[in-house]
Amino acid sequence: MKENNYTAQFVAAIYKSAPLISEVAVSEAKKGVLDFLASCFAAKDEKSVQNLVDFTLAEGGTPTAPVIGQHTLTSDLQAAFLNGFIGHYLDFDDVHAEVRGHPSTVILPALLALASCKNMSYRHFLNSYIIGVETMARIGRTIGAWHYERGWHNTSTLGSIGAAAATSFALQLPQEKFAVALGIAATQSSGLRGQFGTEVKPLHAGLAARNGLLATKIAESGAISGSSTMLENFYSVYSENKKVPEDLAVGWGLEWSIVSPGLWFKIYPCCSAAYHTIDAAKKLRQNHSISLDDIAAVNIVFPTGGDAALISTHPKTGEEGRFSAEYVCAIILTEGKITAHHFDAREPSKKIKELMRKMQRVYSKSIRPAPHAVPKGRFTIVEVETKHGEVYTARCDAPEGSSANPLSVERLHDKLAQHVPCSIPLQTLVDCIQKAEYTAPLIDLLKEK
Amino acid sequence: MKENNYTAQFVAAIYKSAPLISEVAVSEAKKGVLDFLASCFAAKDEKSVQNLVDFTLAEGGTPTAPVIGQHTLTSDLQAAFLNGFIGHYLDFDDVHAEVRGHPSTVILPALLALASCKNMSYRHFLNSYIIGVETMARIGRTIGAWHYERGWHNTSTLGSIGAAAATSFALQLPQEKFAVALGIAATQSSGLRGQFGTEVKPLHAGLAARNGLLATKIAESGAISGSSTMLENFYSVYSENKKVPEDLAVGWGLEWSIVSPGLWFKIYPCCSAAYHTIDAAKKLRQNHSISLDDIAAVNIVFPTGGDAALISTHPKTGEEGRFSAEYVCAIILTEGKITAHHFDAREPSKKIKELMRKMQRVYSKSIRPAPHAVPKGRFTIVEVETKHGEVYTARCDAPEGSSANPLSVERLHDKLAQHVPCSIPLQTLVDCIQKAEYTAPLIDLLKEK
Repeated sequence: MKENNYTAQFVAAIYKSAPLISEVAVSEAKKGVLDFLASCFAAKDEKSVQNLVDFTLAEGGTPTAPVIGQHTLTSDLQAAFLNGFIGHYLDFDDVHAEVRGHPSTVILPALLALASCKNMSYRHFLNSYIIGVETMARIGRTIGAWHYERGWHNTSTLGSIGAAAATSFALQLPQEKFAVALGIAATQSSGLRGQFGTEVKPLHAGLAARNGLLATKIAESGAISGSSTMLENFYSVYSENKKVPEDLAVGWGLEWSIVSPGLWFKIYPCCSAAYHTIDAAKKLRQNHSISLDDIAAVNIVFPTGGDAALISTHPKTGEEGRFSAEYVCAIILTEGKITAHHFDAREPSKKIKELMRKMQRVYSKSIRPAPHAVPKGRFTIVEVETKHGEVYTARCDAPEGSSANPLSVERLHDKLAQHVPCSIPLQTLVDCIQKAEYTAPLIDLLKEK
Repeated sequence: MKENNYTAQFVAAIYKSAPLISEVAVSEAKKGVLDFLASCFAAKDEKSVQNLVDFTLAEGGTPTAPVIGQHTLTSDLQAAFLNGFIGHYLDFDDVHAEVRGHPSTVILPALLALASCKNMSYRHFLNSYIIGVETMARIGRTIGAWHYERGWHNTSTLGSIGAAAATSFALQLPQEKFAVALGIAATQSSGLRGQFGTEVKPLHAGLAARNGLLATKIAESGAISGSSTMLENFYSVYSENKKVPEDLAVGWGLEWSIVSPGLWFKIYPCCSAAYHTIDAAKKLRQNHSISLDDIAAVNIVFPTGGDAALISTHPKTGEEGRFSAEYVCAIILTEGKITAHHFDAREPSKKIKELMRKMQRVYSKSIRPAPHAVPKGRFTIVEVETKHGEVYTARCDAPEGSSANPLSVERLHDKLAQHVPCSIPLQTLVDCIQKAEYTAPLIDLLKEK
């Protein structure tokens, strides 16, 4: 390879750093596996999930890998595709601030599919996952805001590369093949934010998981040749300044992105950008007793651009409400808490619709973000004006579940316990996630034999 | 749907115009089918083709659709993937100036896979192909040069949308579902030119064929919801001025892109951008007898940017030579003609390498392109300076095979005859392509039963 080959440097850094992966990172990775499975189980009975499983089964394929919560096996690529979709279906899976999207629902389906074909040490599986998250996070923070703002869905565009890195590492591909795998993933990089609010958004996660795994498998097989310098080409097309930043691989392994800023685990199945609004509205309701009839207006205050993902101001269904600050705010002010059923296909009630009509979004350049804000620079203030002229406000900078305000392992266990199907013994599953030596027992459990 | 919904207008225009598809267009489409199959057969014994077929068979899948020239069946999506790769493998398949890429090797694999599951009228099959080419050509000419120059491979980025349009039309999807299919195709739009010169370039065609067919099948099934306004989002991300041009669907059906400017059929398995050089060098050699030893220097003159696809100036193998003006020029000046074996994995001979070292590319802003140039604005001049100070030049504006200098049907038949496997009776195949009423006989022949 040539000098200044960034793709080669990237791969070399991965292999150099991997033996140093810390216990803290591994412990976070276990949480990630647990939360991902809980998010899949929570979606297992959704009609569209069953539809896509049936659609895929019709294609045939060697039944190798479990489709989570579906009592069925498909080929490895199909399982990566379906589990990515299922994991992200409710928008209940983890997010990562630097990715500006969802790493685990792309990386883990690809890794689980691979582990279904080939038993591996569970520690190596977790290390591969950490490498995948690191890849997505580093590309995410260096590709810049332009990428997302131009219209790409980072979960998907960065996801295929992350999934390829994780699976290539899991297979310990020689460095040249690893670089080719990254290139085949990069050349499939796609996913448009115009699909937000439809079920193609979770499909993006499935497509990226499959594309990343396909890239690794093709590179491993050596069936065809491919470029080993594609990170360069990827940045030149998908980033604003068209260049791989010099520091892309610098310091790799000194600190892991899965630890800092870390994964953000969700307690409500909606877009994480709406979490600040939920927590602020909750605080407001706890601290003040406001009658709904007295509310004259509600301002929801963001830093400029802080609501980019919240594309719906007057959602027509609970599903659209996943991406609506107004909807979650109205639910909390009305009912005090928010649960999965609020995000189904039903129309919002008349009361909720009326309250949403009183809301407006306000953008402030002068309010300072808190130093511990997650993501950096973000906050949301909910400000209620009553008909009597009183004004009540509450603010959230780091919502519950985010890395600055993390969930306890117990709450994650609760999430899993609430959704795990009865065909899988909970304690055995938790033991597999926390203490297994190899991946086979976990895969066997997921097969729901 | 909303007013000014360009995606809906686009789909409506397709259905309004389809009954008017002309006999001339249908006749060109038959040539396209013939040439595509010839290009697939020419690649049938390539090692990498066999590798990718084996790789795909290992995944399993319901054996429904023929893999061309491979004596084997796979699932429909897998066949679309493999036949796209095979058709483009030698870069021997047709190109289209407005697409700035290869339409048939993406659209036909998707349509043939569909026809393998569901017999249809052959005329309807051809009409669907014409719709697919029209879609790619219209997006190609309106998305602007920026798209290609930024680094995308149009065959692939526009191909998934073209394949979705062709297959959605073949299935006569209701307009809303058709629009959703275009959206699922658009959100998978990918393929980077950084892979030119590797075997991932033909892989792009296979991926796009599969992605487009998958989009149509998901939309048809109604398994999940999707946006029906994604052409808007596609242009906002993938075009320089970020807007769907008002005239995207205007005049749809008055003239068909498959007729004008038409498909360009290839007689050499290399990049069409090198064809001008080949024809100019041939003319030079015919008109002047120049001894190789006498050559002091060779200038190859292009309009600025006219050699963008010719990424290799000193190819190390025949494969890389597919994208090299220097290589094809040296072959012609040395041997007088160029054949498939010149583009295999072998190293160029010492004589060819020496001659290439005497060459340089020159860019002219002052030389005027010819009015009949294909593509518009393109030309190549080969200028040989001898050691005695003589200068010989020859120029090509529209190479043999291009729409302004088309191949006869007889030459296309020769191409097919030269490559068809002995398991398929040539005359029966030609009859199917020229006169069939339904697709089933063609599919049966391709199954090589």
